[in-house]
Amino acid sequence: MSEKKAAEVTAFLERYRSFLIVSHIQPDGDAISSVLSLSFGLRRLGKETQAAIDWPIPEVFQSIPLCDQIRGYPIDNGFEALIFLDGSSPDRMGRFAKWLDEKPSCVIDHHRSALSFGTVQWVEPTASATAQLILMLNRRLGVPYDPVLATVNMLGLQTDSGFFRYSNTTADLFKDAAFLMEQGAQPYFNASTILENKKTEEFHLLTRMIQKLVILLSGKLVYSYITQEMLRECECTEEDTAGFIGELRSIKGTECAVLFVESEAGDTRVSFRSKKWFDVSQVAAYFGGGGHLKASGCSLRGDFFANIEKVVRYIERQMAQSDASKALLTLLSDRGQNEK
Amino acid sequence: MSEKKAAEVTAFLERYRSFLIVSHIQPDGDAISSVLSLSFGLRRLGKETQAAIDWPIPEVFQSIPLCDQIRGYPIDNGFEALIFLDGSSPDRMGRFAKWLDEKPSCVIDHHRSALSFGTVQWVEPTASATAQLILMLNRRLGVPYDPVLATVNMLGLQTDSGFFRYSNTTADLFKDAAFLMEQGAQPYFNASTILENKKTEEFHLLTRMIQKLVILLSGKLVYSYITQEMLRECECTEEDTAGFIGELRSIKGTECAVLFVESEAGDTRVSFRSKKWFDVSQVAAYFGGGGHLKASGCSLRGDFFANIEKVVRYIERQMAQSDASKALLTLLSDRGQNEK
Repeated sequence: MSEKKAAEVTAFLERYRSFLIVSHIQPDGDAISSVLSLSFGLRRLGKETQAAIDWPIPEVFQSIPLCDQIRGYPIDNGFEALIFLDGSSPDRMGRFAKWLDEKPSCVIDHHRSALSFGTVQWVEPTASATAQLILMLNRRLGVPYDPVLATVNMLGLQTDSGFFRYSNTTADLFKDAAFLMEQGAQPYFNASTILENKKTEEFHLLTRMIQKLVILLSGKLVYSYITQEMLRECECTEEDTAGFIGELRSIKGTECAVLFVESEAGDTRVSFRSKKWFDVSQVAAYFGGGGHLKASGCSLRGDFFANIEKVVRYIERQMAQSDASKALLTLLSDRGQNEK
Repeated sequence: MSEKKAAEVTAFLERYRSFLIVSHIQPDGDAISSVLSLSFGLRRLGKETQAAIDWPIPEVFQSIPLCDQIRGYPIDNGFEALIFLDGSSPDRMGRFAKWLDEKPSCVIDHHRSALSFGTVQWVEPTASATAQLILMLNRRLGVPYDPVLATVNMLGLQTDSGFFRYSNTTADLFKDAAFLMEQGAQPYFNASTILENKKTEEFHLLTRMIQKLVILLSGKLVYSYITQEMLRECECTEEDTAGFIGELRSIKGTECAVLFVESEAGDTRVSFRSKKWFDVSQVAAYFGGGGHLKASGCSLRGDFFANIEKVVRYIERQMAQSDASKALLTLLSDRGQNEK
């Protein structure tokens, strides 16, 4: 962790009295955890804050404490400084990005693909989650924790590390989790809220997805897809497919898993996951998306099945070219940065 | 943790030179992790040890390091003392139980349902896993850790806490995990080995199980079953159903989930899980099984479908009688003991 950067950000937080604290569109657990933990942390120090995300909060997070305190767009321009969390580029702020030119701004992120922007920017790819950086800042500032704030802060540590299962899980992440437990965090509440809330219809959709499964390169590459028609037939929404890419990666022998979901607007939403050595961040980047070495995504216009064909052919070529042992060595020298 | 008991066990380990270290039949991750961590820990101190389990090692664990060093029954009677790990009663030792009468023995466990047996017995229900107790003992004894031993010891911490998602996850568990990370543990290796090794046939079996799903008490009770015929049709074995009870519990609104699996010998294997307040350990105990408040199991003889009927009717009555708020209060005063 960069002590210098943390000090710079701490100074930024101490300098102003009121903040708009934004996280990225298509919010995940880390976005929600980070924006709430910093917002309610700073309030406990007497600052005025508003948490905001220019996107509806996914249903699965709606029963997380304080989540109803996140506002959407628009918001009054009455704040002194802008903070943007867990977003690697200005467009991830949605319509709040317009204030980047008008207000002093601070960007805090852990994505290695982060662009350079903001008055002050702290990008820490060794952090497992942005919520981990927020915990560090709150502790530096002397924010008092209680079970609610601890549980909310824990959420990002959990979701961005795949509940401590992914390869970005570090000793520091476990230590931070232990600290939050001592403040009364309830990780089981978060896990149960997020993971044990399936509609039975989701199992039917999963079945349909498995029926469409295509296995290539002796099982190293697997992909499947979900169309709007499949969603309608199973009475599911795009949101319900959130865990499905993980199901594809869980197949024995898979190195790279890809899921294509047709959005309501007709776009092709693509999720990529890899297990050990294949770099899916470069695949996503090639198609205009972004992410981590083992978890990334992109969105494509145009014909759904033509897009599938194009992406799959590209990955096939990339995987054939990849020298697995070389890639493995790179990954080993790069621990803690290799997965969302 | 009982300091007195830990000291007693440490003295037992220091007293003898050679040990047979046994864990329970139908071994899970904690059984395997505990037996290997203590066996290879003591060897590093110059002791002679043999790890043993009177049951085949499930395929999913076979690529865990050192797992091939666990022996089955029989084993030569050339050891001085017997250690039994993670087993709450002598019959869980399988055929190794016969030596309980002949040798000085030490029993280490974290199940609240543990019977009293062994020359020295340490039962610590506040521990999330028996592997956590082994880590504590190894550290007391000064066992040097390396990445292999750390990874093997981590396994039990992971599997018995549902990969840090269950309500038995504690600050101490996270601290122990952080310590093992600093010794080079690879939790992602364990998680990926166990959770990302599915055959596509398992998805078909899951679909079949969901087709049989029965929802009772407005969704609070859900159950399903898997027969030998279903296993055959999907080209799966009973072992492949290991994660299925978790899928049932993950259904929205469920308080109690039950899965019935017909064994090859025709027995009815029953798994119980609960989410918040219903005590499934008493249900399992009523039918001659055992376990924890939120995770338990039993095995029944006789007609498969008659058994299902009998168990479901019993749970329906129990759940109707349970005063949820009272049960919740009991659970809250009993943290860390309420789930495997």
